[in-house]
Amino acid sequence: MQAIHSPRFPRVLPVLALAVLAACNGRGAPGAGAGGDVLKLMQARNLSEQDVTAALKTYTPTGRHDEYYTFASGGHGGNLIVIGVPSMRILKYIGVFTPEPWQGYGYGDDSNAVIAQGFRGGQEITWADMHHPALSETGGEYDGKYIFVNDKCNPRVAVVDLSDFMTKQIVSSELIASEHGATFVTPDTDYVVETSQYPAPLGGVYAPIEQYDEKYRGAMIFWRFDRQKGRIVPEQSWAIELPPYMQDLADCGKKVSDGWVYCNSINTERAYGGVLEGKPPLESGATQNDMDYLHCIHWRAAEAVVKAGKTTTIAGMRVITLQTAIDENLLAFVPEPKSPHGVDVTPDGTGVVVGGKLDTHTTVFDTQKIAAQMKEKKYVGKDPYGVPILDFKGSIFGQCEIGLGPLHTVFDDKGYAYTSVFIETVVAKWSLKDLKVVDKIDTHFNIGHLVAAEGDTVSPDGKYLIAMNKWALDRFAPVGPLLPQNFQLIDISGPKMQLLYDMPLPLGEPHNAQMVKADKLKPIEVYKPVGTNPFTHAVDPHATIGGQQRIERKADGVHVYMTAVRSHFSPDIVRVKQGDTVHLHVTNVEQAKDATHGLAIGGQNINVSLEPGKHVNITFVAKKAGVFPFYCTEFCSALHLEMAGYLLVEPN
Amino acid sequence: MQAIHSPRFPRVLPVLALAVLAACNGRGAPGAGAGGDVLKLMQARNLSEQDVTAALKTYTPTGRHDEYYTFASGGHGGNLIVIGVPSMRILKYIGVFTPEPWQGYGYGDDSNAVIAQGFRGGQEITWADMHHPALSETGGEYDGKYIFVNDKCNPRVAVVDLSDFMTKQIVSSELIASEHGATFVTPDTDYVVETSQYPAPLGGVYAPIEQYDEKYRGAMIFWRFDRQKGRIVPEQSWAIELPPYMQDLADCGKKVSDGWVYCNSINTERAYGGVLEGKPPLESGATQNDMDYLHCIHWRAAEAVVKAGKTTTIAGMRVITLQTAIDENLLAFVPEPKSPHGVDVTPDGTGVVVGGKLDTHTTVFDTQKIAAQMKEKKYVGKDPYGVPILDFKGSIFGQCEIGLGPLHTVFDDKGYAYTSVFIETVVAKWSLKDLKVVDKIDTHFNIGHLVAAEGDTVSPDGKYLIAMNKWALDRFAPVGPLLPQNFQLIDISGPKMQLLYDMPLPLGEPHNAQMVKADKLKPIEVYKPVGTNPFTHAVDPHATIGGQQRIERKADGVHVYMTAVRSHFSPDIVRVKQGDTVHLHVTNVEQAKDATHGLAIGGQNINVSLEPGKHVNITFVAKKAGVFPFYCTEFCSALHLEMAGYLLVEPN
Repeated sequence: MQAIHSPRFPRVLPVLALAVLAACNGRGAPGAGAGGDVLKLMQARNLSEQDVTAALKTYTPTGRHDEYYTFASGGHGGNLIVIGVPSMRILKYIGVFTPEPWQGYGYGDDSNAVIAQGFRGGQEITWADMHHPALSETGGEYDGKYIFVNDKCNPRVAVVDLSDFMTKQIVSSELIASEHGATFVTPDTDYVVETSQYPAPLGGVYAPIEQYDEKYRGAMIFWRFDRQKGRIVPEQSWAIELPPYMQDLADCGKKVSDGWVYCNSINTERAYGGVLEGKPPLESGATQNDMDYLHCIHWRAAEAVVKAGKTTTIAGMRVITLQTAIDENLLAFVPEPKSPHGVDVTPDGTGVVVGGKLDTHTTVFDTQKIAAQMKEKKYVGKDPYGVPILDFKGSIFGQCEIGLGPLHTVFDDKGYAYTSVFIETVVAKWSLKDLKVVDKIDTHFNIGHLVAAEGDTVSPDGKYLIAMNKWALDRFAPVGPLLPQNFQLIDISGPKMQLLYDMPLPLGEPHNAQMVKADKLKPIEVYKPVGTNPFTHAVDPHATIGGQQRIERKADGVHVYMTAVRSHFSPDIVRVKQGDTVHLHVTNVEQAKDATHGLAIGGQNINVSLEPGKHVNITFVAKKAGVFPFYCTEFCSALHLEMAGYLLVEPN
Repeated sequence: MQAIHSPRFPRVLPVLALAVLAACNGRGAPGAGAGGDVLKLMQARNLSEQDVTAALKTYTPTGRHDEYYTFASGGHGGNLIVIGVPSMRILKYIGVFTPEPWQGYGYGDDSNAVIAQGFRGGQEITWADMHHPALSETGGEYDGKYIFVNDKCNPRVAVVDLSDFMTKQIVSSELIASEHGATFVTPDTDYVVETSQYPAPLGGVYAPIEQYDEKYRGAMIFWRFDRQKGRIVPEQSWAIELPPYMQDLADCGKKVSDGWVYCNSINTERAYGGVLEGKPPLESGATQNDMDYLHCIHWRAAEAVVKAGKTTTIAGMRVITLQTAIDENLLAFVPEPKSPHGVDVTPDGTGVVVGGKLDTHTTVFDTQKIAAQMKEKKYVGKDPYGVPILDFKGSIFGQCEIGLGPLHTVFDDKGYAYTSVFIETVVAKWSLKDLKVVDKIDTHFNIGHLVAAEGDTVSPDGKYLIAMNKWALDRFAPVGPLLPQNFQLIDISGPKMQLLYDMPLPLGEPHNAQMVKADKLKPIEVYKPVGTNPFTHAVDPHATIGGQQRIERKADGVHVYMTAVRSHFSPDIVRVKQGDTVHLHVTNVEQAKDATHGLAIGGQNINVSLEPGKHVNITFVAKKAGVFPFYCTEFCSALHLEMAGYLLVEPN
């Protein structure tokens, strides 16, 4: 350690300062002891001057709140991850598609119903592959009210309410069989965009793979969001049919390009593998062409076409067919190099930055040139499905030579773009004005998406950027063959980027994230009034307050009206007969912040979280006779262990 | 900010140093710029000198590994949390009782079978309330091989293998209906102790609550652990019947008290609530007595009694009845004040420290006095069930006046004990020699358990302590009504304790933890040889390597022998008929560290994690006809998105 360390010393201020201090002032000075501490710590922990700076830029003392929230998708963990910036502490995992018992999510009637909204084709689905969260926006700015997130594997979209950080709705359409370009919101959150990835026959029907060209298709769904209700309204939602390419990421236009959505694609070769059937694997079959197609869709014009009734209903979804989209001039393609992936609209809405996994530069498409050419129908050709194609050179602002494998791009407040470069495994900072790279910083390792403070809004903040690295390799103490991902916090406030912090992701593989100013969120502290059901935002009809606790046998079973308060449940003895259907109606009657109780019942697979004022309904059948203790699962008081009771199931 | 901040300045070394620097040396000196940075940062982020010290004691630069692992129970999240110390970064959540899709835990045949081992009475149980993890020990020292953890609600014990950080076994006995004093291991991990909490008729049968005194009982189970197999052997396990008090925490003797286990109890009043039936709630009914009973059990003598066949089998478990335990002099009680909770054996094994939730001091019981009196049968009375009682004063070393609500105690390397004091919400440091408090530090808020570096082994390390606080209140940026818990890292290397770090717990409510030196763990990096099944630690009979990929229709369904490698699956097209049972046998043939793939299949609720060399078997029925894309869910390469295929389910 010492050997490695020594060369750094001349660069270390506290050491130097102390030396000078000693040289010109023999007497011990106040603070010198502490200075000695700093020196000792730098030696003991082998910290460089840069390490000290990074530590002081990220350390957040007790009681101090983080400046930003980062909301990261949980990847195949099926939950949403809330991270404080700059401390990089995880503040919460929000259960979304995967049941999570600590929150009681998926262990009580109402949350079970939300998860069941996401079952497809009668199949229970208890996980998801979440990729791209999208905060609700007003005028292209995050408004801190809701966040949406997708499931790539079983195409679904979830609505998470940021007043209480709970998932309130899941929507799904059988129109498509998988997705990827989701979720992305229009600048006022009129729509949440969900775009298919792997083509399949629309509506979940079967067709042999040999009919791929004729019967397999893609689609982009526009889920209508009702801000007042805080819910997506499927009946008001619609979709556009797309050719059987693999539609990839999408982004909505803003400002001058408001009303548009841009989506890239891969596999215009329409390969579908078949390695045991004498065909090349998709990875080579799908990478033959030098160019694929950027999809440019005028969604506002499409909305009018839908209102005019020019749709076909498939699997309950109103669909603008590909032919109608062409006839109505809603869709055009622009060639994009090579195996494109990221597609990100600039803050002013004039540009769309596209990276190519096998390319060496980012291409900035010009939204206004595209719009003008489409208006004039100035097309240079058609794809095999008749979709008009725009001239590449006539549709771009320019290209930036950036390195091998540019993926995703975010923006700061000074006119710079930041692009993740996968194969080079760096973040490249470049000027949107002259398309020149001004700085690069190594990442560790295999960077995927990146996120900057408010970096995909109309007014990015700069300051912080997180590189979302897919591999950790040697970065952290080993935890077996399955390693965490590595989020690296980077300071982008100065001309040179500085690495501040390595953060392991302990659960799930986040793909994308959004970073929002903390003061934009105004979450509630307790549910008011007492008895509120978080899923209806109203006092539950079965809410129970002091004096009303009771047990009633009704036609549909035994109803238990229960209260929780430090440190007992009332009733605390529940007597039923084997085979009874039991309806528990439980209200936490407390209103003190953090006075959360839980209710767990042995043998019934039940645990619910009862935050202050919250009401929860639980239905179960007492199948087995016996004595089943129930108790509070959230440590609430000195006599928490005594907050217990018995479910007595008498045999028949 | 500035106003609050200024007064701190004179105490800040870098500032002072810079001032002196300037005073005696007009010229700019190397490093002065950086010194200016430190000063600016302290001002900008309002950091005190203490904050700077804390930051430098915890900040862990990129690529640097933490010195300790802390393994914390996930509370009602049902998973195990792995935390790096001193950085306090969460390195991994290990799925234990709750299915976790990122790890594929509960989404493939073998892991499903492990979770199913924990189902009770035919009831599927997909969560747990985990309280006390226990690392495997050799000679009273953590050996870094295994960790055990309990479920309080549905009494179960899980075995987690620290070679790959995966759960390999869950055991459960219908003998008891709930537990709390679990898991605790004997000094060589011969046994894993699990003790009931809320009394119930033994064996899961029904009895009216009015027969509580006669028919309700507690029990302590000794699960036999086979270190060679790495599994608990239920057939070699046994239990001791206990009176219907609420047995609480337990701890095993060590060194001079090896062969003993100590367990405290509450509710010797045998109250059981009944608030709607005219009875007092348990919280008051259970707190009438000034003394409850410390249970002292000579497990090594009990083991001999079991070997002699003096047991009764209940619910498949060999049980030493309470009467036999009395007759064989295996069990004695010592009175303990008041609403006792924590029970912790000192490193040298001579003392047992007990805290009382409604007490103001910790009591140190003398294991040797207890053993001697039991040997001489020097009893002062009997409880209502005939259990002999020892004299309180004759059984203790002494008491320490510590503050209101002492709970748990851990130890350092200098003869000090550290006790969490709930109502005062502090950690109290006191001397085991003279039972005097030497330091106290505030915690935020409602401290429960605490953990120190190797703090419950025969040779604690000192250095670090974590206060596991139940409430966070205002400590972190708000995340709705359900708040994280707060782990506070405390430096205990010096005479005064120093708070270093506040860490939010984003998922689950940990109760207890153990902190082990990182270099004691030697996890594997990849599965060798290729095709290894982690649950059998052998090459799976269905393991598939290059050239052997195939699809075979057999009597029991369609068998797909598949390989995964960057960037394709082989086969990548799977054709089956509606209603077919499909057996997927998938091997990741890679051996590069971190080259993990995932396999997700649309519509089937399937996602598995395929670490390098790992083999997974997945069985499902293709119920629905259609086209279902499958793909790699772990970002593996530039062409990861192209690592996909199709499951084609042809209709009948």
